[in-house]
Amino acid sequence: MASWLPIPSKSHFSLANIPFGIISSSTHSTRRPAIAIGDHVLDLSAFAQNNGFSKLSDFPADKLNVFSQTTLNDFAALGRPVHRATRSYLQQIFHKETPYPQLLKDNESLRNKALIPIADVKTYLPLSIGDYTDFFAGRNHAQTVGTLFRGAANALQPNYNHLPVAYHGRASSVVVSGTPLHRPWGQVLPNPQAKDPVFQPCARLDIELELGMFVCKGNELGAPIAVDDAQEHIFGYVLMNDWSARDIQQWEYVPLGPFNAKNFGTSISPWVVLADALEAFHGEGLVNDVPPKEYLDEKRKDSVLHLNLDVSITTSKGNTTKITQTNSKNLVWSWAQMLAHHSISGCNMRTGDLLGSGTISGLEPGTQGSLLEQTQGGKVLVELEGGEERKFVQDGDTITITGWAGESDDGIVGFGECSGTILPAIKRN
Amino acid sequence: MASWLPIPSKSHFSLANIPFGIISSSTHSTRRPAIAIGDHVLDLSAFAQNNGFSKLSDFPADKLNVFSQTTLNDFAALGRPVHRATRSYLQQIFHKETPYPQLLKDNESLRNKALIPIADVKTYLPLSIGDYTDFFAGRNHAQTVGTLFRGAANALQPNYNHLPVAYHGRASSVVVSGTPLHRPWGQVLPNPQAKDPVFQPCARLDIELELGMFVCKGNELGAPIAVDDAQEHIFGYVLMNDWSARDIQQWEYVPLGPFNAKNFGTSISPWVVLADALEAFHGEGLVNDVPPKEYLDEKRKDSVLHLNLDVSITTSKGNTTKITQTNSKNLVWSWAQMLAHHSISGCNMRTGDLLGSGTISGLEPGTQGSLLEQTQGGKVLVELEGGEERKFVQDGDTITITGWAGESDDGIVGFGECSGTILPAIKRN
Repeated sequence: MASWLPIPSKSHFSLANIPFGIISSSTHSTRRPAIAIGDHVLDLSAFAQNNGFSKLSDFPADKLNVFSQTTLNDFAALGRPVHRATRSYLQQIFHKETPYPQLLKDNESLRNKALIPIADVKTYLPLSIGDYTDFFAGRNHAQTVGTLFRGAANALQPNYNHLPVAYHGRASSVVVSGTPLHRPWGQVLPNPQAKDPVFQPCARLDIELELGMFVCKGNELGAPIAVDDAQEHIFGYVLMNDWSARDIQQWEYVPLGPFNAKNFGTSISPWVVLADALEAFHGEGLVNDVPPKEYLDEKRKDSVLHLNLDVSITTSKGNTTKITQTNSKNLVWSWAQMLAHHSISGCNMRTGDLLGSGTISGLEPGTQGSLLEQTQGGKVLVELEGGEERKFVQDGDTITITGWAGESDDGIVGFGECSGTILPAIKRN
Repeated sequence: MASWLPIPSKSHFSLANIPFGIISSSTHSTRRPAIAIGDHVLDLSAFAQNNGFSKLSDFPADKLNVFSQTTLNDFAALGRPVHRATRSYLQQIFHKETPYPQLLKDNESLRNKALIPIADVKTYLPLSIGDYTDFFAGRNHAQTVGTLFRGAANALQPNYNHLPVAYHGRASSVVVSGTPLHRPWGQVLPNPQAKDPVFQPCARLDIELELGMFVCKGNELGAPIAVDDAQEHIFGYVLMNDWSARDIQQWEYVPLGPFNAKNFGTSISPWVVLADALEAFHGEGLVNDVPPKEYLDEKRKDSVLHLNLDVSITTSKGNTTKITQTNSKNLVWSWAQMLAHHSISGCNMRTGDLLGSGTISGLEPGTQGSLLEQTQGGKVLVELEGGEERKFVQDGDTITITGWAGESDDGIVGFGECSGTILPAIKRN
């Protein structure tokens, strides 16, 4: 698909994508919805106010104010048929042979107002997050980390292949890409033999490469989402770095799971790639030999996303090294199965809920989504450009995740970046 | 303190209390703030609109619209000095010798409009909950349950006395007292020796007697709350029943903690008893022999709430039996310590966040806040009135928690009730 707007062939934001986010700009500080397209964003608030959506018939006429909100929640709540129609329509608007040139292509004053260079906008959390849940569906990660802690024979817990293991995470500290985070303080054991903890800044700060999924349509309390209906509840996807303080985690996590080791911050990419934009990029996930219980038995078998994922680290000296290259096919549960399991108890999902996939890793060096795996529990150094090396994240390091599907010819469907820098621990007295 | 309004001497909502909630009434279906007083509520929306607050000087003049909101979040966000002034002022308004009789006592039309019998109002969640976190500060509960699972020698995990153990809970399914919940479906092991789970309705449905605390003032990400400043972040308290599906929990909880076993519902009482109203009812908690780390070392030593707590069960046959009589002094950590620990990683709290204490239990039969403890893991029957007996909660059972401090002479400061009925599991195909 070609556009009248110049879109670099390697752009993650091709005409095949049309991801949604929340922006502000130097000339207009109010947060508002936008889509990313090539090296620009289209300000949907300005576009809507100037009759840009006047030819979009499959849209509830009294709901155009969703494009004047400071989050995407109200747009998401309109449901997948509306998202689908809106994305298709915006593809038409930008198409080289758009049927509606007067709405943007030939409307210079609106172009000047609503098409903003992406470098000139600030992005925000795309949705107001109700609850954040993190799954553990990356079985290679679970396998490798379990082997480190308990040996290969007991690596996976007995429940692992029967259900999508998950924990409730902290919604308040989910931050948008670019937000720096302080190294957390906490209680840690000074050595593996110690019985008493010490209180200090985390010494084993790690990353977790994940995908995030935003819920568009909720369910009533007590009314589980059927696995084959779950796609209608999916708004779209983001990249996620579930920062993890391994030493704090190891001391605190028995018996109720990770808490302070995770709740100091979770980074997500700013542009929500709609479920429809990734429809062509599904396939089988990791093979699970355990037959699924009926509530997890999805009719569709190619229901795991296949996205290319990279992680790089940029040190305070300015050296950038790609440390991970993997694919989201390394998941054993689909998002539909995760939603079905989450709600099978009757738990209600709400518009804006965020689900994480769990750490996405291959089994080989260079394909693993955490430093814990890459360094075999902190025993092996990861070598970086410029002769630097790392066991865990150091102060001043910037971690950048990127992810995409598709080829330049058809248009890449990508997320851009999810990046975050670790600042030193705050000073105490 | 005596009021011109008749207040029954045993009322939980004496003039010494003044708890805040959200109501609607048959004549006015809009949700709005109110206080409970004796057998009435005062509709604060109507009171504010009729200049009821005109003599309250310690209140930001442009913020009276907090009393027209559908939640208490905006009122809570004004901070403890404003809550304190508002409560004192309302005590003056209702005092037998009120300095402002024209504002309510002698204003018959406003009394008729704003003073509504409590039996005629419907209550709602008092605040919109951002994140819900459940602590595990009831050491007797941890000890008894740990002994059941691992034997007395290993009952408490090594971290237990060093830090307030907690997990992130599910905010979406926190419901107000009176909301029925369906028995959850889930994966459970059919017997302790089984390796493969079955999918069925929970067979070991339990209760957990807890206190809940609402946060009024948040903190910025990366800026922990100091333990001695934490009181300023506490809006007030509610009763909580953290319903627990023990069989689901046992299968799912390793390694990331409870998930579906808890997220089908958590019940709270509708009236938030302000921190100031309970100031006189603090004392020492359970003795902890482990010296606290500096960030947990609270100057104040009598910082644990001492509240009387009862649990009763009403069966579908109509028999009501009090099964628990205990006191919230059975906690080993104060709310200030819980807030300090929660935020020490840098985690940000927000107005409306809800924290649970963990299950409050004594060590003797009849003082324990869960059936798991009372039945010694489902082995001993609890005898009920009318010859009924229970190991766990049955369909149609209503669990009612009540809690209070103080004596009739000075005015009881109580919560009213937190009650919930378990409905049968939903039918599947």
